[in-house]
Amino acid sequence: MDADSLRDYKNLSSGNICDAMELLGLRRSVIHGFTFVAPPGSIVVGPALTVRQIPKHGSAPKSANLVRHAEISRQIAQEGDVVVIDVGGIRDVCSWGEIHSLRCQKRGVAGLVIDGCIRDVEAVRKMGFPVFCRGFSPVKSQWDLETLSLNEPVMIGGIQVRPGDILFGDETGILVVPPEREREVLSKATEILAGEEKIICELQGQDSG
Amino acid sequence: MDADSLRDYKNLSSGNICDAMELLGLRRSVIHGFTFVAPPGSIVVGPALTVRQIPKHGSAPKSANLVRHAEISRQIAQEGDVVVIDVGGIRDVCSWGEIHSLRCQKRGVAGLVIDGCIRDVEAVRKMGFPVFCRGFSPVKSQWDLETLSLNEPVMIGGIQVRPGDILFGDETGILVVPPEREREVLSKATEILAGEEKIICELQGQDSG
Amino acid sequence: MDADSLRDYKNLSSGNICDAMELLGLRRSVIHGFTFVAPPGSIVVGPALTVRQIPKHGSAPKSANLVRHAEISRQIAQEGDVVVIDVGGIRDVCSWGEIHSLRCQKRGVAGLVIDGCIRDVEAVRKMGFPVFCRGFSPVKSQWDLETLSLNEPVMIGGIQVRPGDILFGDETGILVVPPEREREVLSKATEILAGEEKIICELQGQDSG
Amino acid sequence: MDADSLRDYKNLSSGNICDAMELLGLRRSVIHGFTFVAPPGSIVVGPALTVRQIPKHGSAPKSANLVRHAEISRQIAQEGDVVVIDVGGIRDVCSWGEIHSLRCQKRGVAGLVIDGCIRDVEAVRKMGFPVFCRGFSPVKSQWDLETLSLNEPVMIGGIQVRPGDILFGDETGILVVPPEREREVLSKATEILAGEEKIICELQGQDSG
Amino acid sequence: MDADSLRDYKNLSSGNICDAMELLGLRRSVIHGFTFVAPPGSIVVGPALTVRQIPKHGSAPKSANLVRHAEISRQIAQEGDVVVIDVGGIRDVCSWGEIHSLRCQKRGVAGLVIDGCIRDVEAVRKMGFPVFCRGFSPVKSQWDLETLSLNEPVMIGGIQVRPGDILFGDETGILVVPPEREREVLSKATEILAGEEKIICELQGQDSG
Amino acid sequence: MDADSLRDYKNLSSGNICDAMELLGLRRSVIHGFTFVAPPGSIVVGPALTVRQIPKHGSAPKSANLVRHAEISRQIAQEGDVVVIDVGGIRDVCSWGEIHSLRCQKRGVAGLVIDGCIRDVEAVRKMGFPVFCRGFSPVKSQWDLETLSLNEPVMIGGIQVRPGDILFGDETGILVVPPEREREVLSKATEILAGEEKIICELQGQDSG
Repeated sequence: MDADSLRDYKNLSSGNICDAMELLGLRRSVIHGFTFVAPPGSIVVGPALTVRQIPKHGSAPKSANLVRHAEISRQIAQEGDVVVIDVGGIRDVCSWGEIHSLRCQKRGVAGLVIDGCIRDVEAVRKMGFPVFCRGFSPVKSQWDLETLSLNEPVMIGGIQVRPGDILFGDETGILVVPPEREREVLSKATEILAGEEKIICELQGQDSG
Repeated sequence: MDADSLRDYKNLSSGNICDAMELLGLRRSVIHGFTFVAPPGSIVVGPALTVRQIPKHGSAPKSANLVRHAEISRQIAQEGDVVVIDVGGIRDVCSWGEIHSLRCQKRGVAGLVIDGCIRDVEAVRKMGFPVFCRGFSPVKSQWDLETLSLNEPVMIGGIQVRPGDILFGDETGILVVPPEREREVLSKATEILAGEEKIICELQGQDSG
Repeated sequence: MDADSLRDYKNLSSGNICDAMELLGLRRSVIHGFTFVAPPGSIVVGPALTVRQIPKHGSAPKSANLVRHAEISRQIAQEGDVVVIDVGGIRDVCSWGEIHSLRCQKRGVAGLVIDGCIRDVEAVRKMGFPVFCRGFSPVKSQWDLETLSLNEPVMIGGIQVRPGDILFGDETGILVVPPEREREVLSKATEILAGEEKIICELQGQDSG
Repeated sequence: MDADSLRDYKNLSSGNICDAMELLGLRRSVIHGFTFVAPPGSIVVGPALTVRQIPKHGSAPKSANLVRHAEISRQIAQEGDVVVIDVGGIRDVCSWGEIHSLRCQKRGVAGLVIDGCIRDVEAVRKMGFPVFCRGFSPVKSQWDLETLSLNEPVMIGGIQVRPGDILFGDETGILVVPPEREREVLSKATEILAGEEKIICELQGQDSG
Repeated sequence: MDADSLRDYKNLSSGNICDAMELLGLRRSVIHGFTFVAPPGSIVVGPALTVRQIPKHGSAPKSANLVRHAEISRQIAQEGDVVVIDVGGIRDVCSWGEIHSLRCQKRGVAGLVIDGCIRDVEAVRKMGFPVFCRGFSPVKSQWDLETLSLNEPVMIGGIQVRPGDILFGDETGILVVPPEREREVLSKATEILAGEEKIICELQGQDSG
Repeated sequence: MDADSLRDYKNLSSGNICDAMELLGLRRSVIHGFTFVAPPGSIVVGPALTVRQIPKHGSAPKSANLVRHAEISRQIAQEGDVVVIDVGGIRDVCSWGEIHSLRCQKRGVAGLVIDGCIRDVEAVRKMGFPVFCRGFSPVKSQWDLETLSLNEPVMIGGIQVRPGDILFGDETGILVVPPEREREVLSKATEILAGEEKIICELQGQDSG
């Protein structure tokens, strides 16, 4: 995804992209029902960096640190990436918070999509690092979870996400665009947007009745 | 519902109306658990225009356009109406968005109650057209749904809504008032409000302890 | 649906029919997650007689009898029909029980699919009238519900069912077959069944080991 | 809990306290999934005043007033208390609203945690009395509920809360601290906070990349 | 509840009793959605012995045994009683199993209603001690729960149950009958049953077809 | 797991093993809430063969067969294995049916645990191949899912299962025993069983009161 594509995607809405993907006959790839912790009007676009976490094995001691967040926020996540964490929908442990958000923001990471919880909600919202999550929990993942894989396919909200897939998210929802179709989707969605803008302009030009 | 009633209802809260209906012995008619996309403090009041949508039949092609939103927002919804859409609680398709909201707003429609999803959430919130919904989805209803009826009784949140029923909604919840009891409910609720305001004034006049 | 079709469908499983419909490119029309109150191995096949019930309106007195079960089980349901009742998923009122089951059984009705509850569960199971339901409740629908329509399209488990659609249900699930494709589906499903039976015979002929 | 403790707790986050409690080997005592109706950045800390409400008995008339809110907000709740109401998760009746919030605010009550609903949501949010709840309903508890006990142990979100337990809540979640461990938890959490602040300062001092 | 009442109640169904209570204007008191582990056709009738369990407090050690099952099954539950355990709907711990069932059966206890889980499901079913529960779990309550009260009012499935209330349960559902109305309900329900039996006899006497 | 261990485990219940693991201080590893399709009294014990399936990627054609069931039931599953399939809780597609069950049964496979659906429910039950599942669906996984890994760690019901972990399941629930602790757990559980059997014998020897 080059800088031009990125800029042009940022003019679109999830509705435009969804319509484009349906019209192009792509398999429906929409992630529904996440809470968006971000400034009003935020849009998250970029290639996915995928992480899979699962509960610790019965043989693992509570104190064992088997998660790899620090690595991700310090080294692995690159400028423009969208970090995508599959924790199997677990709602009583968090896998992200203020420090990882700040580190990622400093490195230019585009945002986070997590099928689980974050903590430090107020601080994350204030710093403006955009996060899609399932809920909030103060419980550190270190006690309960382990990182099973990095950059392998994961499932988020019933949709497969592969490393490098283009994620586009706004308050309405998140789309997963296969990277090889990225240009085609952009082009069709831009056309749809143009049609909608024309209608909206006409409507706004009318006197209210 | 005349202009005076409308103005007087707008001074009330859902709590006042609910108390009045209980005291008058009316069947409980409260719609719970909707998300209110609207400016803080918004109130929606007006007669219901009802719409029923269901999933397309197995024999319908994907491309067939069997929904009737355009008609509703262009012609059918009248000034003061509350559009009420029963989609059976489906959460992965939307049945409303920016353009329909704008058209309705221009025509003076009071708001929308939908037992399903909307899209263009940020735009709808910014324009101030008040919407009660179950969630958000970028997926256009055209692909999956059809409009089955207009102005027939529908079920929203476990409550029957008939065309012409008075809907009253604020952030706390939505009441369905039978139109033939509208004045009686207004009168009782106004009395309840007066009692509450007196208590609140007294409390606000006290020094904090 | 003639007697031959009916007999041939009864040799199939929901899996065979579902595979056939997918291979024929029909819109997926599967009703999931119902409890099957019926003797082991039961199959329900036949054209749908559709009923829609919704909660009583706020203006209706508790004692008003607005349901039409008696009519359905006495006159409207015909030999071979599958009665399909859409009650919007309500789980704390029943819309069917022993007497209606017995009447329908006497008239040769094939079975019942209800997106809600039944009562007299033990009696219904013992008499062998097959019922797919969402749960059980002793509360009579007369107090809370009204019958809104007969033989209009309804939604059951997220699927549209039209009067005359062929319903096929076994313990695994329920399929809705458009009547104009009934023969085609039967033919393809029979082919699939033959392939499976061959594999099963071979496997059963093997020594275990 | 003395004034110094209170002030020091207010500098912490739910994450700090949760980490401290885990490190000290305390049983996990986290309340998840509540909606926080409060100004951004609010924190609620204080000893619990516990209330248990259950649905009225079958023999109780609808009009019987068996709740004890007025007593609580007028007399029982003391400055600094957190009112904790267990209503067994009921979502279609409220047990709190504007007048009780205002009375409590005037008396210096710290906030409310309710495993159920409130009403007058907009008014409560505007006055700044912080409330954790499960949802919103305009239906007065007087019709449906009765107060069963005051200052007996209750269950909120799967956690036991005893009168006098220290509750700490922010937008991320709520912790229940046994009062005899309050100092120890504070001390450990303060240490954790110091470590985190150091990291955050370093990160904020860096040039963004 | 004397022996005659008990015998006569055992001829009824939950539907008969529910209809009677509605016709007598009693507050609806139906417990829905429980799994019935019992021989086909079982009916449970008798006065409630109520128990309330909640999760252990944060200060309680894991090994502390704070439950009182042994007492209940050995001494407190009397012949004819229905043991009613409110565990707040917790689904990952059990509060009952084979040994308590056997002890209760030996003492003539009528059955169990638990808003939580049991274990030893196969053994309990085989011995024929009838149990209404929410699910199954092998985890002993001793680790996680404590008994808070015996013979105080509890909430089960959204309904208040007081010690001494008459519980009537069959596969369809459970009714809670205020003891002072027990005769009146029995008399009305018996009348309803007679009416239904007449219809059923007539239907069974008809030729099918 | 040798033949003696296997035989001895088969005398135990999930309750015995759960108690043993708690007493030995192992991390709680219980899988709750599955439906057990098996003859009454069945027990499933053996080492896990793990499979992970996720929804197809947006770029995959509908017809592409990316699942590996045939391989598993024909070659990979060995005598005594428990096949464990993680499908992320998806309820509207099945990943198992009659033919795979029969093949596995012929090869001596001990049973199946699937965090999703099966089809051919009646046939699977009749053949006696024991299955723990989340529900039933006639929809073949080939259309919607792909097999992502074999014999890698998976998550089932919120618990990590590694290839080779000992699974023990009866109608009450499923335990995951770390293989290196298998003997120790067996020994402790056998001791617990002996204690329980003594109590049960005494109780059964008593005259009923």
